[in-house]
Amino acid sequence: MLSLIVSQIFYLHHSHLNICIALKCTFTNNSLQNLFYLSQYHSKFPIIKRKITSDSVDNRQNMLNNSAIDQEALKKRILGNKERLCQLLKKRFFYISSFEIYGGTSGLYDYGPPGCALKNEIEKFWREFFIIHDEMFEISTACLTPYNVLKASGHVGKFTDLMVKDEVTMECFRADSYISDIISKFLGSKTKEIVNFPANIKKFEQATYEELEQLLVTVGNLSAEELAEIMNKYEIISPSANKLSHPFPFNLMFEVQIGPSGLFNKSKDLCTGFLRPETAQGIFTNFNRLIEYNGGKLPFAAAQIGLGFRNEISPRNGLLRVREFTMAEIEYFVNPKEKSHRNYDKFKDTVLPLLSKFNQTQGIVEQMPVARAIECGIIDNKALGYFMAKTYKFLTSCGINPSGIRFRQHMDNEMAHYACDCWDCEILTSYGWIEVVGHADRMAYDLTSHEKHSKVPLKAHIKLDDPIIVDVIKPTINKAIVGKIFKEKGQEICEKLNQLTEQKYKEIDDKLNECGKYELSIGENVYHITRDMVQFHKVLVKEYEELITPSVIEPSYGIGRLIYCVLEHVLTHRQGDADNDERIYLAIPAKIAPIKCSILPIFNDPRFDQLIEKLATILSKSGVSYKIDTTGASIGRRYARTDEIGIPYAITIDFKTLEDGTVTIRERESMSQVRVDIASTGGIVHDCVSGSISWEDVTRTHPLVTV
Amino acid sequence: MLSLIVSQIFYLHHSHLNICIALKCTFTNNSLQNLFYLSQYHSKFPIIKRKITSDSVDNRQNMLNNSAIDQEALKKRILGNKERLCQLLKKRFFYISSFEIYGGTSGLYDYGPPGCALKNEIEKFWREFFIIHDEMFEISTACLTPYNVLKASGHVGKFTDLMVKDEVTMECFRADSYISDIISKFLGSKTKEIVNFPANIKKFEQATYEELEQLLVTVGNLSAEELAEIMNKYEIISPSANKLSHPFPFNLMFEVQIGPSGLFNKSKDLCTGFLRPETAQGIFTNFNRLIEYNGGKLPFAAAQIGLGFRNEISPRNGLLRVREFTMAEIEYFVNPKEKSHRNYDKFKDTVLPLLSKFNQTQGIVEQMPVARAIECGIIDNKALGYFMAKTYKFLTSCGINPSGIRFRQHMDNEMAHYACDCWDCEILTSYGWIEVVGHADRMAYDLTSHEKHSKVPLKAHIKLDDPIIVDVIKPTINKAIVGKIFKEKGQEICEKLNQLTEQKYKEIDDKLNECGKYELSIGENVYHITRDMVQFHKVLVKEYEELITPSVIEPSYGIGRLIYCVLEHVLTHRQGDADNDERIYLAIPAKIAPIKCSILPIFNDPRFDQLIEKLATILSKSGVSYKIDTTGASIGRRYARTDEIGIPYAITIDFKTLEDGTVTIRERESMSQVRVDIASTGGIVHDCVSGSISWEDVTRTHPLVTV
Repeated sequence: MLSLIVSQIFYLHHSHLNICIALKCTFTNNSLQNLFYLSQYHSKFPIIKRKITSDSVDNRQNMLNNSAIDQEALKKRILGNKERLCQLLKKRFFYISSFEIYGGTSGLYDYGPPGCALKNEIEKFWREFFIIHDEMFEISTACLTPYNVLKASGHVGKFTDLMVKDEVTMECFRADSYISDIISKFLGSKTKEIVNFPANIKKFEQATYEELEQLLVTVGNLSAEELAEIMNKYEIISPSANKLSHPFPFNLMFEVQIGPSGLFNKSKDLCTGFLRPETAQGIFTNFNRLIEYNGGKLPFAAAQIGLGFRNEISPRNGLLRVREFTMAEIEYFVNPKEKSHRNYDKFKDTVLPLLSKFNQTQGIVEQMPVARAIECGIIDNKALGYFMAKTYKFLTSCGINPSGIRFRQHMDNEMAHYACDCWDCEILTSYGWIEVVGHADRMAYDLTSHEKHSKVPLKAHIKLDDPIIVDVIKPTINKAIVGKIFKEKGQEICEKLNQLTEQKYKEIDDKLNECGKYELSIGENVYHITRDMVQFHKVLVKEYEELITPSVIEPSYGIGRLIYCVLEHVLTHRQGDADNDERIYLAIPAKIAPIKCSILPIFNDPRFDQLIEKLATILSKSGVSYKIDTTGASIGRRYARTDEIGIPYAITIDFKTLEDGTVTIRERESMSQVRVDIASTGGIVHDCVSGSISWEDVTRTHPLVTV
Repeated sequence: MLSLIVSQIFYLHHSHLNICIALKCTFTNNSLQNLFYLSQYHSKFPIIKRKITSDSVDNRQNMLNNSAIDQEALKKRILGNKERLCQLLKKRFFYISSFEIYGGTSGLYDYGPPGCALKNEIEKFWREFFIIHDEMFEISTACLTPYNVLKASGHVGKFTDLMVKDEVTMECFRADSYISDIISKFLGSKTKEIVNFPANIKKFEQATYEELEQLLVTVGNLSAEELAEIMNKYEIISPSANKLSHPFPFNLMFEVQIGPSGLFNKSKDLCTGFLRPETAQGIFTNFNRLIEYNGGKLPFAAAQIGLGFRNEISPRNGLLRVREFTMAEIEYFVNPKEKSHRNYDKFKDTVLPLLSKFNQTQGIVEQMPVARAIECGIIDNKALGYFMAKTYKFLTSCGINPSGIRFRQHMDNEMAHYACDCWDCEILTSYGWIEVVGHADRMAYDLTSHEKHSKVPLKAHIKLDDPIIVDVIKPTINKAIVGKIFKEKGQEICEKLNQLTEQKYKEIDDKLNECGKYELSIGENVYHITRDMVQFHKVLVKEYEELITPSVIEPSYGIGRLIYCVLEHVLTHRQGDADNDERIYLAIPAKIAPIKCSILPIFNDPRFDQLIEKLATILSKSGVSYKIDTTGASIGRRYARTDEIGIPYAITIDFKTLEDGTVTIRERESMSQVRVDIASTGGIVHDCVSGSISWEDVTRTHPLVTV
């Protein structure tokens, strides 16, 4: 820990407050940084904008600056490439609007062969990175979900968006998106001459820029009343210039009738249900089976990759807001007093870009190691921090640019109905910052609620370090009297009386005190118990374990969103062979590339056919997927084509192969080639893809081909 | 080809017909067999029951006999084990009724960790065996499907089951299952004193045994009228002894409203849809994109693994009849004149157990090579035969007992609305023979129908071997007059006139003949064309390709059903260590085993902790999944436990490991153990699982451990 001198001014800066304080003191590096973070969140001085001369802090400032520069560059690149990416994805059939020949269906997409392969590879990598590495339990539960399950989870009541409707055409809009679209349109138009602006432009002109910018940030968290107020203020109407309805909640779940209803009235087998809005509920309802599977112990995690459905009011932005999507969710069940993870230490130093709720209105993102953020109370606990750090590693391994990642904490009024602390991992896209992974501390909300509605206990036994002494009520039974009155039934009655709950004992005691007798039911029989048969006493008992409802930490991935973000981030340019022949390609990391290798015979010559088959067999044996391109196009054009869809390695069969059985392997990023024996191709490509060797290793150990 | 003498009597045997004919002639082995099969289906003598003295035929007879004996043994084993299997699957959380804590939901199941892993492994193997091996295009399309798509596919009209309803309680039953349950109950009861029999038992007693047996076979294919007749005849009532409704069709699709409807009346964005009943329609509607992806050429196959939904009237039999299920479907698009497959030759000699429509009422299953069955016209074409043979190989590789497999051809009146020839691959289970894979020749039905409804051509260009000469109508334009009248627009009008369809030319010609002028629209402009501007002539044109609608061959797998069948077939007994300690375990083939390897330290000793971690890392690197069991149970008990859930290999860390770094690997089936260096465990287990080496190879090259 480097000791350093702080001899500079801290600028205090908060919304409408600017104070300066001067500090001159000595700190260790760590404690300085801690003060530094702490001061922002917990000191009496609300937010401190820092200016500290010290190596580490200078570096940090540089990092922030660099990160801002990188972010701008990324944004520019993404926006500049967008049109070409769209064309590429359509042309190469990555994905397409579902039922295109019927005019498409909004909010539904089909993945074509490369898109589907990319999706499979991302799921596989996710399974490896999370489920296998952390020994989670993967399960697969039903999409069709009965009403009472989603009533208990709170989704029937609260899984809604506010909607407004054109009162003439009946067209629907999500209220907040509609308002923010209008504001963005107004702010985006330099001339302020907006054609068909569906609001009173004069009212907008009276507002300050800051007011509108602020509204853009907060509009997503406003109530129906607040939204109505804004609609009134700016005289917002529908795109068809009609009056809009007052905002009203619209439940986003698809309703389904499960069971036969037929032509008659509803049958008793019929049950109202929904398509699940998240995979999580299927995990919670299986909690007892899962903890039993784990030998009754906490903590453990269960995960699920599967479909979720949301009846979005205004699906938009391609794969980013859809009605049917693949989710990958983890529910980590943990003792609420020990919210950590056994692998936490491996990730605690990961530096995360955090946009906390304290800094949100100013938009200040802080680069901070997980451990610090937890020490300072920014991130609530180690378990949450662990999964955030893992997400960061996962996303960057998928090719997401680190400057395009931030963790945004939910504001208190935007939190989902089930959560106490939420961090959305957002990725920078051409549509702005998009939530791709949610990290929520759902506490005991779900288990408590399902326990209440299902009447089945959903609890875990926790061993106590020090046994505790507790008061419990116990019955003292006069077996002689019970035996005398009930004869052969006496034994059964005594056993029953010994097994009841504390609450039941109280009830019986009260009843006996009140009227001297109590009706005890066993099966279909009823027995009259009297005061002389049983007395109740408080006893002190030493307990070695307690029964608790676990807390749940939930990382939740939108796989479709991630796919789209990866595609935007990995699109790369390079100069082609001919002048002015700029080529774009997808620099998808080999690990998740849809196809790992292409097979390219240098000419279309029947002598190569057997070699192609041989190579295909070799690659198959090593588990390497491949695509053969035997079209007559030039080898350069075919390289460009396999680059385009993100194939990381290309193996070329040429005339030398006929002579000595060697082929060339070309790597997509460096475009360098090595010559290897055909038999070793499978192993080399496999090892490069799995990451156990690097391309540099390959170029060092095999002869480079000079083109 | 072995020449042999046939000098025996053929017995002709058909329903109510028994004729004998004698044959004495010489045949080659092959042509004999052919005559043999042909005679059954195409000769004037309807069905020939064979008795031929020749080596091959004797063998065949033996094979049939053996197969019948094996089948009986299998049946006995499955039924005997059923109760223990159910307990095992529940105890080890393979799968469980969904939302169990809410009392379960009929027809919905959740897969727990081993079940989910088994499902993933089967899907992975299927993907390898079909998609990767045959270079199919895997796609992933939406479950939510708009009304018009399923209207076009015929599902809105015809995807129904006949239902009857208790007219008092409104309880629903699938009509055919209800009747067959009653018949089975009657036939199964030896004493004929059936309590609460929901039909007139006297009427049943008047029927012959054969009549009822026959009804059991045909009841699934009867019309509503025919079912009503049977219900009348036997005075069938509901289980609550109420009158049942007349059978009526009930559509098995779940209806869903896509888009916002909210509190007002229906919005224009609202669209009625269904949850897809099969994944196939998502492939058909993407036909144009897919054939473009294949460079415009036929044949090609597209595949999809995904969810299907059917609102079953009476879900039953665990995973066998459910409301939500994973399907794996292939659509092979092929020139209708060349229904074959490039890998056909590799599978043509596979002997399949065929229960053809000709033999179905007698229940005669024939063991026959695919090529023969096609030559004899039993299986319609090579493409269909190819996929049936592949299915047979796939199922046996999954551990399905060959004696428990048969291919049942659909009777003409039971065929799905879209198919011309169907073969269900059925597997013998404790519930009887269950359809697990459908093989249908859907011909051009789906593409034609979607083309008609979407108005988008769904066709393929086929190169003709010999170009054909066809009559076409071509316009001859008088450019001088067109130019004079329309000035600078002349060029555009001439181009337009040259590009119209034949039908349009006829329409223009008729119009010009009729009234001398025609209004030609180009964009928003209308031009008056007169007779002097254009003449139409028939011309002979040489065509090198034709436009066709491809045929579609569809193998369709029910993954859940397959999982259940595998579990029933692989359950095995063996004697435990102690006397009378009979143990059951799941002999799941290593390829699809949920977990590949267990790690068992011989004692619970902290000195082993590091070794466990080391071994886990080695296995992970080789992509081998593992489960660590550090409970205090004896090593024998822990072997039994990992056997039980089908883990094929167990690695034991013992005190020798501490000394020399070697461990033992035990194989589940032979229970034999070898001692190997810890570093080579990953490679050995990986290679055994992938099948590139056998366990025998391992025991030959490594020292055996004698226990």
